Amino acid sequence: MAKHAYPLTKLAELLQGSAQGEDVTITGVGTVDDAKAGQITFIEKAVMLPAGESSGASALIVPPSATTERKPIIITEDPRLAFNRVLQIFAPEPKCYIGVHPTAVIEDGVTIGEHVSVGAYAFIGQNTILGDNTMILPLAYIGHEVTIGNGTTVHPQVYVGERVIIGSNCIIHAGSAIGADGFGFAPTPQGHYKIPQIGTVIIEDDVEIGANTTVDRATVNATRIGAGTKIDDSVHVAHNVTIGKNCLLCGEVGIAGSTTIGNNVTMGGQVGVNDHVKICDNVVLGGKCGVISDIDEPGVYSGFPAIKHSSAMRAEASLRKLPDLLKQFRALQARMHELEQRLGEHSE
Amino acid sequence: MAKHAYPLTKLAELLQGSAQGEDVTITGVGTVDDAKAGQITFIEKAVMLPAGESSGASALIVPPSATTERKPIIITEDPRLAFNRVLQIFAPEPKCYIGVHPTAVIEDGVTIGEHVSVGAYAFIGQNTILGDNTMILPLAYIGHEVTIGNGTTVHPQVYVGERVIIGSNCIIHAGSAIGADGFGFAPTPQGHYKIPQIGTVIIEDDVEIGANTTVDRATVNATRIGAGTKIDDSVHVAHNVTIGKNCLLCGEVGIAGSTTIGNNVTMGGQVGVNDHVKICDNVVLGGKCGVISDIDEPGVYSGFPAIKHSSAMRAEASLRKLPDLLKQFRALQARMHELEQRLGEHSE
Amino acid sequence: MAKHAYPLTKLAELLQGSAQGEDVTITGVGTVDDAKAGQITFIEKAVMLPAGESSGASALIVPPSATTERKPIIITEDPRLAFNRVLQIFAPEPKCYIGVHPTAVIEDGVTIGEHVSVGAYAFIGQNTILGDNTMILPLAYIGHEVTIGNGTTVHPQVYVGERVIIGSNCIIHAGSAIGADGFGFAPTPQGHYKIPQIGTVIIEDDVEIGANTTVDRATVNATRIGAGTKIDDSVHVAHNVTIGKNCLLCGEVGIAGSTTIGNNVTMGGQVGVNDHVKICDNVVLGGKCGVISDIDEPGVYSGFPAIKHSSAMRAEASLRKLPDLLKQFRALQARMHELEQRLGEHSE
Repeated sequence: MAKHAYPLTKLAELLQGSAQGEDVTITGVGTVDDAKAGQITFIEKAVMLPAGESSGASALIVPPSATTERKPIIITEDPRLAFNRVLQIFAPEPKCYIGVHPTAVIEDGVTIGEHVSVGAYAFIGQNTILGDNTMILPLAYIGHEVTIGNGTTVHPQVYVGERVIIGSNCIIHAGSAIGADGFGFAPTPQGHYKIPQIGTVIIEDDVEIGANTTVDRATVNATRIGAGTKIDDSVHVAHNVTIGKNCLLCGEVGIAGSTTIGNNVTMGGQVGVNDHVKICDNVVLGGKCGVISDIDEPGVYSGFPAIKHSSAMRAEASLRKLPDLLKQFRALQARMHELEQRLGEHSE
Repeated sequence: MAKHAYPLTKLAELLQGSAQGEDVTITGVGTVDDAKAGQITFIEKAVMLPAGESSGASALIVPPSATTERKPIIITEDPRLAFNRVLQIFAPEPKCYIGVHPTAVIEDGVTIGEHVSVGAYAFIGQNTILGDNTMILPLAYIGHEVTIGNGTTVHPQVYVGERVIIGSNCIIHAGSAIGADGFGFAPTPQGHYKIPQIGTVIIEDDVEIGANTTVDRATVNATRIGAGTKIDDSVHVAHNVTIGKNCLLCGEVGIAGSTTIGNNVTMGGQVGVNDHVKICDNVVLGGKCGVISDIDEPGVYSGFPAIKHSSAMRAEASLRKLPDLLKQFRALQARMHELEQRLGEHSE
Repeated sequence: MAKHAYPLTKLAELLQGSAQGEDVTITGVGTVDDAKAGQITFIEKAVMLPAGESSGASALIVPPSATTERKPIIITEDPRLAFNRVLQIFAPEPKCYIGVHPTAVIEDGVTIGEHVSVGAYAFIGQNTILGDNTMILPLAYIGHEVTIGNGTTVHPQVYVGERVIIGSNCIIHAGSAIGADGFGFAPTPQGHYKIPQIGTVIIEDDVEIGANTTVDRATVNATRIGAGTKIDDSVHVAHNVTIGKNCLLCGEVGIAGSTTIGNNVTMGGQVGVNDHVKICDNVVLGGKCGVISDIDEPGVYSGFPAIKHSSAMRAEASLRKLPDLLKQFRALQARMHELEQRLGEHSE
């Protein structure tokens, strides 16, 4: 399935690196462990050079500190970055229907930009606006009065509720639900009374949202995801939450209602954040940790309840010593008892 | 997008409160932080009055203890409840296709009540019954021999498996899967043997189920969700589970197989409950806690394994003191050693 | 809804057991608690016999050690296994469209095997191959160049991304997303740069994947799920992960990127595994535990960070004693202080 073939020298030019060795033809990419003939891979540090040399790859991207004559190479300051560019070069073109598929349901008043793709059995509700170069894949549901910015891709099975606003160059992966009702109920003697969720969701530019993730609509205003933030699969963002710019939320994170998260916040997998909490900029939350109160200081936090990672590590280390401590404590008590006995004798 | 406009006096009447100040026209709702001209907001306590007065709102809902002449107000005993009613008043009408959309697939033997909406590309399987005023949104899948009660809404991308029974006035949000097979396998020398899951799911009246939640079908009888229970997004309810009435399950909760949960049980986000566990009525489980054995006494529980919250807090507080305790213990050991040395001298 | 009716003697024959008592007609299955007339249930041990005898069931499957004359019985060495076979006998036939539904979109170059069912509004992308006896339920999305093996079932609302390979006799439950992009970004001064995810997902034979689960495509090669592995609902498997054969992953498990998991590994609900971790064969991970580093030794692990379950239990038990320990420690300090005082007197 090689869609492209490049001589090594041409590839070096595209990567702004310098080629050395035979000018082989590169038809794809591989990892050091699995690369096959025709593929190029990369090594990040000199210590990985032997693995690269003995790999099946036809060429290596290497740093200046790890050149070799055993394989054709491209020398570049940042081999990992260069490899990312190679991935882009060899990425297969996304396939989509050109134009609006005859089976797509387009309700009244929909505005469709230029070069828009709407796939089979997609549904676009009344008065919705699809910007230029948007791609709505088959079986996606876009409610009424939605705005989707230029260059945004909405994958199959996605739900975008009414009045949601999605910016430009966003990617919403399969099965995500953007704009379902927030979980708001008022206790009454007759049971839980549903508080209408009449707000919306605003997703700024350059946001990516993983598969089967949920972002709920606000009670009154908007649940908001800041520009450049990337969210993984199966994440849950509750109503009235504000997430800042350039955050990273890994898989299965859960953010409870009305919480506010700053910019450049990174959350490991399965992190949970309580409702009505504020987290400042530049915070890193370790995987599985649970934030139950405000975080006002940048840094790395972990554990439950989440505290500074260094303290959490210390507490953890202490905990490991606890069974021993208990034993030693019993011993010390015994020694004390003996001493008291003897001292009793002394004082007689 | 103001769908409604009410003079303040009219709104006060609807809320059974009393208006005071200029009879302004209200066209929407806002929060104290963000309200704009034309909108009404609320304050719950006198301490919030200054924020309300300086907000952009055109009017405030206030308690009798916090009246003002600086803005038009509605005075009411329970401003939060009144605000919930205002949200209902201003909530946009849900849009749906009137009748059965020509693209919907309706298999043989389906019974359709009065005022039913079935959206584009929805699928309704053989012999299924849709009660009066049900709303099946586009792209929903309802299997065969399903029963859906009056006034229930099924959102896009939902899966309802065969023979599932859903009561009246339920809401099933986008992407949920109700009635997929339970996770049941028998170990054999040839690997995991699938135990057929031939039971079903019964969802009683007034239940709300969040987006991308899963409720699995029972092995033999029925997985059951009691009346009035509200379930958030991305929750997983395994096969053979029984959940009582008026429970609240927050986002990403997981309930393992054959567990029984009483009435009025509240679970915070990411709570996990083991299989074959019984939880009695009126239990509150703190966020992220893990229940590994029966809970027989009402109360608040937290931690892993979940214990009474007060004990968990005490254990947590002790844990924080542990690094210090270790230091102090070493000091005490040293003092003991010195004492023993001196006493040794004494006894010589 | 009794699809079948068997005389007890016939059922005994099918189960390779021996019938005793009246040759009643069995029309379904029930549990000891809920069985109704016409149904058969089972008891595993003699201690459950009274419950079986007083149940509503018309017959019991019993072990040789627990026969009775109070109900018709089938005696068999392994009543649980026999009951699983009974479930299979009484399982309703799955319903599906015979052939390709006229509304299904089948793109160019699709290869369709024998006895294939493609349901209403399903989408099958270019050059995809559907093996014999595959069942693609309504509203499923199968991308281009996908391969699906013989006898595999894909439920409604499932997303299978381009180039994904699914083996034979697999079951993919409703709403799952197989082959969405992995969560890979490179930090740059301009924000998170998307690393193209040009690999795929390979799912081997006899794999079952629960509802709303996500398995992301690899950056370069393939995320791989080994033969015979069973995955529950709402699980997240990140890119570049390899899972071995015959594993069991319970609900809401999360596996971070590039992790490798051996054969016969069992994970309880809500388990999290860090990225780039290796777990050897025959490991059991207790519910909610978090694995942050390699596991090289088979056994049962629990806690966060996950350690051998026995150690975790010991640490847990110690933790419970900690508040008491703190009190006793203060007492010991006081006794020490007193002793030192007295000794001070002594030494004067």
